[in-house]
Amino acid sequence: MTVSYVHCIQPLRVSSKTHLCFSGGRCREDRRKSSCLVFASASKSDVNLILQSKVEVLLDSVKWDDKGLAVAIAQNVDTGAILMQGFTNRDALATTISSRKATFYSRSRSTLWTKGETSKNFINVHDIFLDCDRDSIIYLGKPDGPTCHTGSETCYYTSIFDHLKDQEVEGNRLALTTLYSLESTISQRKAELAAPENGKPSWTKRLLLDDNLLCSKIREEADELCRTLEENEDKSRTASEMADVLYHAIVLLTLKNVKAEEVLEVLRQRFSKSGIEEKRSRKPKK
Amino acid sequence: MTVSYVHCIQPLRVSSKTHLCFSGGRCREDRRKSSCLVFASASKSDVNLILQSKVEVLLDSVKWDDKGLAVAIAQNVDTGAILMQGFTNRDALATTISSRKATFYSRSRSTLWTKGETSKNFINVHDIFLDCDRDSIIYLGKPDGPTCHTGSETCYYTSIFDHLKDQEVEGNRLALTTLYSLESTISQRKAELAAPENGKPSWTKRLLLDDNLLCSKIREEADELCRTLEENEDKSRTASEMADVLYHAIVLLTLKNVKAEEVLEVLRQRFSKSGIEEKRSRKPKK
Repeated sequence: MTVSYVHCIQPLRVSSKTHLCFSGGRCREDRRKSSCLVFASASKSDVNLILQSKVEVLLDSVKWDDKGLAVAIAQNVDTGAILMQGFTNRDALATTISSRKATFYSRSRSTLWTKGETSKNFINVHDIFLDCDRDSIIYLGKPDGPTCHTGSETCYYTSIFDHLKDQEVEGNRLALTTLYSLESTISQRKAELAAPENGKPSWTKRLLLDDNLLCSKIREEADELCRTLEENEDKSRTASEMADVLYHAIVLLTLKNVKAEEVLEVLRQRFSKSGIEEKRSRKPKK
Repeated sequence: MTVSYVHCIQPLRVSSKTHLCFSGGRCREDRRKSSCLVFASASKSDVNLILQSKVEVLLDSVKWDDKGLAVAIAQNVDTGAILMQGFTNRDALATTISSRKATFYSRSRSTLWTKGETSKNFINVHDIFLDCDRDSIIYLGKPDGPTCHTGSETCYYTSIFDHLKDQEVEGNRLALTTLYSLESTISQRKAELAAPENGKPSWTKRLLLDDNLLCSKIREEADELCRTLEENEDKSRTASEMADVLYHAIVLLTLKNVKAEEVLEVLRQRFSKSGIEEKRSRKPKK
């Protein structure tokens, strides 16, 4: 179904950084962070009316189920980790649009709830996506802290295949995608360095123990990546050299206790600013 | 709820690369790919019985709703992209566990369906995760092709904030996390190079147009990343330099038409093999 804007009486531009305010009853006004739009040509109440109308049209276009619900999945905008899944209804989605805090409808308590209202671990929503059927929604956002009520980073830490492998399951394992799974493995290797070991240490451990070796490998792999362009090598060589750069760089990040997520946050913040603004805001290099 | 293994009569180890076969009626036997486990101490039928029993216990532990359903989210194991969301029931989950192809229950057709059974764009499941409430499931897998029936890579390509910003929405925009959003922006800059432009080109365009500049920047940024370790600079400097390495490296990947996803696939394949096996399988360097 295509959203129609017949209700809209004039073009409207909303900065992605501006919090929408409309008289939906549940708009949480955070005077520090949110600001209502003011246009030279329209009064605040006109603008609110237009926005409210656009939001209503949008809410009408969602294919709510027989209970008035749709699935809402909260996803970390930087890492892609699925944080949690709940259900949303018309009011919960309207609240999320206006407050930019992931808000759900609790089926057990028959009430709206904003993730973080008790724990303060809000999920700050940067964008919201509907699927092709308009009955499933992604809240793409940045969590203030662990999402799960257990204190886990995400609610998905029970692997079915782990359970089928072992009679006794040793601890939990988050649902991690490739980069974060590699990061987690390298962190484990770092933690194991304290324990005495027989035999030759793995390559990762050797890198973790020898800054000179690690840095020479990072410089070498970056050079090899460049040579795939300079010497017109094939695509598979480029992918392979970039994998080498990433792996060795993550070993360095692990040594420095920097998470890949922190790096992605830096990238996101840079690319949401103009180049000039961004350069000005950087700390001077030594 | 904790999974109990009281039904299991002996310890059982299943390699993550081994496809489980059990007599669930819906086990799709792919003789090329799947292999049933054979243990010296147990006959094939014993093993099948044990596995079947473990799977049944696991299926019992899922908190199915009043219609016998749970939410199932398919996620790309390399990029973290949420591919689609459907519902699963006991049979659909059992089929996914045994076939390793993401399988759902269609509420409209009241039948099981394996994503890809018509299009051949299967989602090859590497792991399955339950959430803390055991009523939401991630199928973490690798898609064979676009997941959406529209031909889109994922089903989530309608941004609510885009719709609220503009009266006319220009095309669709996938729900991309930071790295892929950056990659997409750089790809756009590359596509824009063909069009004549007034004024000074952006930094990204200058890099795209000048291999020497790009390669000197990649080498320089890799060196600066290393120096944050060698000169014991603070964590924020490491994150910032790594962001520089990533950004410049993605410009190079874009020039070579290599997707970040391909790099992550290389990393995943390396880390699922032992170091020695992996090194042997690499193409020799020039």
